Amino acid sequence: MERRQPPQTEEGWYVLHDFRSIDWDAWRNAPERRRERAIEEGREYLSTAESVADADEGDSATFAVLGHKADLLVLHLRPTLGDIDALERRFEHTALAEFTERADSYLSVTEVSGYMSQEYFEEGETADTGIANYIESRLKPEIPDTDFLSFYPMSKRRGPDHNWYELPFDERADYLSNHGEIGKDYAGRVTQIISGSVGLDDYEWGITLFGDDPTDVKELLYEMRFDPSSSRFAEFGRFLSARRMSPADLSAFLAG
Amino acid sequence: MERRQPPQTEEGWYVLHDFRSIDWDAWRNAPERRRERAIEEGREYLSTAESVADADEGDSATFAVLGHKADLLVLHLRPTLGDIDALERRFEHTALAEFTERADSYLSVTEVSGYMSQEYFEEGETADTGIANYIESRLKPEIPDTDFLSFYPMSKRRGPDHNWYELPFDERADYLSNHGEIGKDYAGRVTQIISGSVGLDDYEWGITLFGDDPTDVKELLYEMRFDPSSSRFAEFGRFLSARRMSPADLSAFLAG
Amino acid sequence: MERRQPPQTEEGWYVLHDFRSIDWDAWRNAPERRRERAIEEGREYLSTAESVADADEGDSATFAVLGHKADLLVLHLRPTLGDIDALERRFEHTALAEFTERADSYLSVTEVSGYMSQEYFEEGETADTGIANYIESRLKPEIPDTDFLSFYPMSKRRGPDHNWYELPFDERADYLSNHGEIGKDYAGRVTQIISGSVGLDDYEWGITLFGDDPTDVKELLYEMRFDPSSSRFAEFGRFLSARRMSPADLSAFLAG
Amino acid sequence: MERRQPPQTEEGWYVLHDFRSIDWDAWRNAPERRRERAIEEGREYLSTAESVADADEGDSATFAVLGHKADLLVLHLRPTLGDIDALERRFEHTALAEFTERADSYLSVTEVSGYMSQEYFEEGETADTGIANYIESRLKPEIPDTDFLSFYPMSKRRGPDHNWYELPFDERADYLSNHGEIGKDYAGRVTQIISGSVGLDDYEWGITLFGDDPTDVKELLYEMRFDPSSSRFAEFGRFLSARRMSPADLSAFLAG
Amino acid sequence: MERRQPPQTEEGWYVLHDFRSIDWDAWRNAPERRRERAIEEGREYLSTAESVADADEGDSATFAVLGHKADLLVLHLRPTLGDIDALERRFEHTALAEFTERADSYLSVTEVSGYMSQEYFEEGETADTGIANYIESRLKPEIPDTDFLSFYPMSKRRGPDHNWYELPFDERADYLSNHGEIGKDYAGRVTQIISGSVGLDDYEWGITLFGDDPTDVKELLYEMRFDPSSSRFAEFGRFLSARRMSPADLSAFLAG
Repeated sequence: MERRQPPQTEEGWYVLHDFRSIDWDAWRNAPERRRERAIEEGREYLSTAESVADADEGDSATFAVLGHKADLLVLHLRPTLGDIDALERRFEHTALAEFTERADSYLSVTEVSGYMSQEYFEEGETADTGIANYIESRLKPEIPDTDFLSFYPMSKRRGPDHNWYELPFDERADYLSNHGEIGKDYAGRVTQIISGSVGLDDYEWGITLFGDDPTDVKELLYEMRFDPSSSRFAEFGRFLSARRMSPADLSAFLAG
Repeated sequence: MERRQPPQTEEGWYVLHDFRSIDWDAWRNAPERRRERAIEEGREYLSTAESVADADEGDSATFAVLGHKADLLVLHLRPTLGDIDALERRFEHTALAEFTERADSYLSVTEVSGYMSQEYFEEGETADTGIANYIESRLKPEIPDTDFLSFYPMSKRRGPDHNWYELPFDERADYLSNHGEIGKDYAGRVTQIISGSVGLDDYEWGITLFGDDPTDVKELLYEMRFDPSSSRFAEFGRFLSARRMSPADLSAFLAG
Repeated sequence: MERRQPPQTEEGWYVLHDFRSIDWDAWRNAPERRRERAIEEGREYLSTAESVADADEGDSATFAVLGHKADLLVLHLRPTLGDIDALERRFEHTALAEFTERADSYLSVTEVSGYMSQEYFEEGETADTGIANYIESRLKPEIPDTDFLSFYPMSKRRGPDHNWYELPFDERADYLSNHGEIGKDYAGRVTQIISGSVGLDDYEWGITLFGDDPTDVKELLYEMRFDPSSSRFAEFGRFLSARRMSPADLSAFLAG
Repeated sequence: MERRQPPQTEEGWYVLHDFRSIDWDAWRNAPERRRERAIEEGREYLSTAESVADADEGDSATFAVLGHKADLLVLHLRPTLGDIDALERRFEHTALAEFTERADSYLSVTEVSGYMSQEYFEEGETADTGIANYIESRLKPEIPDTDFLSFYPMSKRRGPDHNWYELPFDERADYLSNHGEIGKDYAGRVTQIISGSVGLDDYEWGITLFGDDPTDVKELLYEMRFDPSSSRFAEFGRFLSARRMSPADLSAFLAG
Repeated sequence: MERRQPPQTEEGWYVLHDFRSIDWDAWRNAPERRRERAIEEGREYLSTAESVADADEGDSATFAVLGHKADLLVLHLRPTLGDIDALERRFEHTALAEFTERADSYLSVTEVSGYMSQEYFEEGETADTGIANYIESRLKPEIPDTDFLSFYPMSKRRGPDHNWYELPFDERADYLSNHGEIGKDYAGRVTQIISGSVGLDDYEWGITLFGDDPTDVKELLYEMRFDPSSSRFAEFGRFLSARRMSPADLSAFLAG
């Protein structure tokens, strides 16, 4: 059994999806003064994170999560794991944290691979500007300013019949190229951040999709499910849906 | 491996199944005044939701859940995810919420697909009124006024032997058409709301069945299980059973 | 792929397995007066349920559960889901409930199927008295007065190789007939209540076995495991073991 | 599909693996007097159980569990399920129980089968003394006085390719005979108690291994994993590791 | 079906991955004095463990864990399980423990096997010094002083198509030799501690990878995933990521 050629990868910013549940019982029972302080400190934490005051570069955004799995998602992208670690722990020292529990999280790092950008990996810094800009936009993505977010982790199957990791490189590249074509039909409607998590968290990738209309995201993913890259090789984890909110909305969010 | 043709879909109202457990210990120990306020605010929340005072259109209904998984189900259908989000959070600000925990939830959106209604998708607005009405009733369904509800999420299999997403379109359409025939035998006894959840929640669809006699629902699902569309391709999640209650019943419900 | 013929079924009483854990810490710390009230109200609830004072017919029984999964099992059979719902909630209003948590539950309905009793389904009310009595005893079973109970839910496999729901009717009937033969060897030692739960709970059936000697139940199930109906087609859920107790034993049960 | 011959079995003592977690927060904060009482009552419970003062025969032993799954294992073997039930509940009435939570448990019964001891089952009481003694030592085993214990539950596979329950009797007997040969190489270093749990708990058997050197247990199990009886047919549950302690060590155990 | 030859193994130090969550609510609300004492006792516990004051040999190190699964990882290697047990319990008696919960753990023992070092196992003590030193460094590894750690447990597949335990010895040795070659390309960037856990914990091995740059670890594991030893035979458990911290950092860590 011969070993298959892995793609080259380049990594950019670390990504933390930090899901929190509000302890609504504690919130309802808290005196006005504690609530005000929680809102104030929470807003300041979120605003400061979104302004990336803690690092040279990166991005952060806040979301309200639908359903029972969580209430808040704070999404952080930063150049180092130390930045991410500091942001995660700093949250715990706000008065808002007293009203939240960590419900879920996902750790990953933005990634481009040689499947997509062989030219870039072969030519390195001499690659043309278009490609370099494209790579840069994937490694250091700005969080799109859209209303809806869908997050899920996934891995590629290693089953006896369909084993992604035993396909020849070119076959994998073809699958992914066709897969990417579907996404292009949704340009302007759905944007994605793909981050790798092998060795960082339980699945191999985290996928975060952004769009103003949730049904665009649904249709894109449904269409992709018929593509062999998904129909045959994808193992999906949990799905979390959220709506973008500004730190200034925190008060309204907590007021119900 | 060629990519299979996905069905066209059209989406209607967003659907939240909001399952809550009663904290019976807190309830028993609460002073009469807090209980009364909880019942009053709970009833008002439920009545207001059921009257759809918060949106131009939609529907809501309340159910008592059997077994240990939850006690209450509040089912909301609304035109936007923002409406759903507001309803979910507004509940937390009632005095009733102090006696509940979120036990489970499911987020989806009503859906019709081109398998069933190719004519509609091909002809669009020129389709005849019968079809248009049928589509409308699936996208903007009224919650049936029946005693019993059964909810479960499901996905279609993507196994090495039986892979729904690698079947030709016509084969899938045939399977679903035959599947639908079974349902017709139960017309007047069992009604269903089918909603899609790809990218919204952990499974691909949420199925909600309504009937006055739970054994009608059981027999329908058992019969369907022998249909290849289920026997070969269905992956079922958890099942929750509930009985319809009016917001006015809340006091009796909590009184035991 | 042709659709297979489902068996006809007839349903009788609804069944709730209501598993509760004792909060021993709260129990130990409670003042004598609260304990006495808990025992009194608990005993009254259980006695009243066992005397079926709440409905025209049915049966209830109480069991002490072995191991960490639960401490008490209250088993209810009643003609309507409303009866079951009322019993479940009424428990929460006893002083005993303050010392219990819901640990698990299973909802189902007694069932006879056309595999076993084709004659009955074909001839309906004209079937002879022996069959009618047999059917009646399965649909409206008295809970056997034995020391030991074993409960587990199960489903039939729908795998690519062995798919119960794609077998011809006669093959399924043969499998089940042979399976039933094993049980006959244990007549007088092991009694069973089989209830269907398609659309009601997570598995397709709930199986409750009763016997005075737990090793009789173990031997029956072990022997059945070699029967193709189990070896090839059964998917088992969790198993819970319990010992029958009378409501009058509640005080001793709680005293340790 | 013909039904395979099950082995005859004979059962001995019931076995409860009762895993408890210490609530260290409560322990640290408890006043000295409550701690002393907890140690005293705990020690008395454990000593009394180990001396089998509650029944005609049986055995009990205490272990400190490694890792986060539990802290204490109390292992009980007794002739009746009633004995086991009483021991489990009696623990809850010691002052030690106030500082513990039930973390896990497993219920089973010692078993010998006709695979191993056909002669015994064929000849019954006329079997020679050597066999009778061997059987007795398996049905009524003394808990070995060794430093290390490893416990795990397991079942035999019923997969489409490898299905233990569809093998001919002789093939199963051969597999198990070869499997047993491996154990013999570890005589004096590793001792085992095998107990059946079909109908009693979630898996089909509980395996408890004893040895002074944990690497002997590891090597035995690793070696067995290459034996087809395991490599092809075993489905393992969780593994728990523990170290023998005497009831007199309880004070030191809790003192850290 | 013939039984396959297991590799010889030699075991060294026992390994405990002790994952703890900080109870941030309790921490925020604690008076300064209790916090100071927690930091002081925590620091002393960690320093003492890292200096291996409790045993003749071994190693310990402290890490901050990313994400919601845990906050702290204390990694202990010691010659005996008694040492490990004592360290685990001693932590509970520090004032720091009052602010932590056990979130996860993994028990294993360092291991070298005959696949890698046949010469060593054949020649025993007469093996040359280079091999002996290599073996020693695997059995009694120093915890590398790097910024990043990734831990995951894993087992080898025993599926009907790909069954590691039914491969001939030489084929397994070849697979692992090729697998090891990949690691050599990362020498100086990624170091690993491989420990066996058959009979000790739920998987067969625990893998702990160390590096200053997390993307080196990610790239190594991604590359290995294409190697048949992983692509075909590996079953991975959860992944936990952490950053090295010194006991002296505890105060800063808890201050946020």
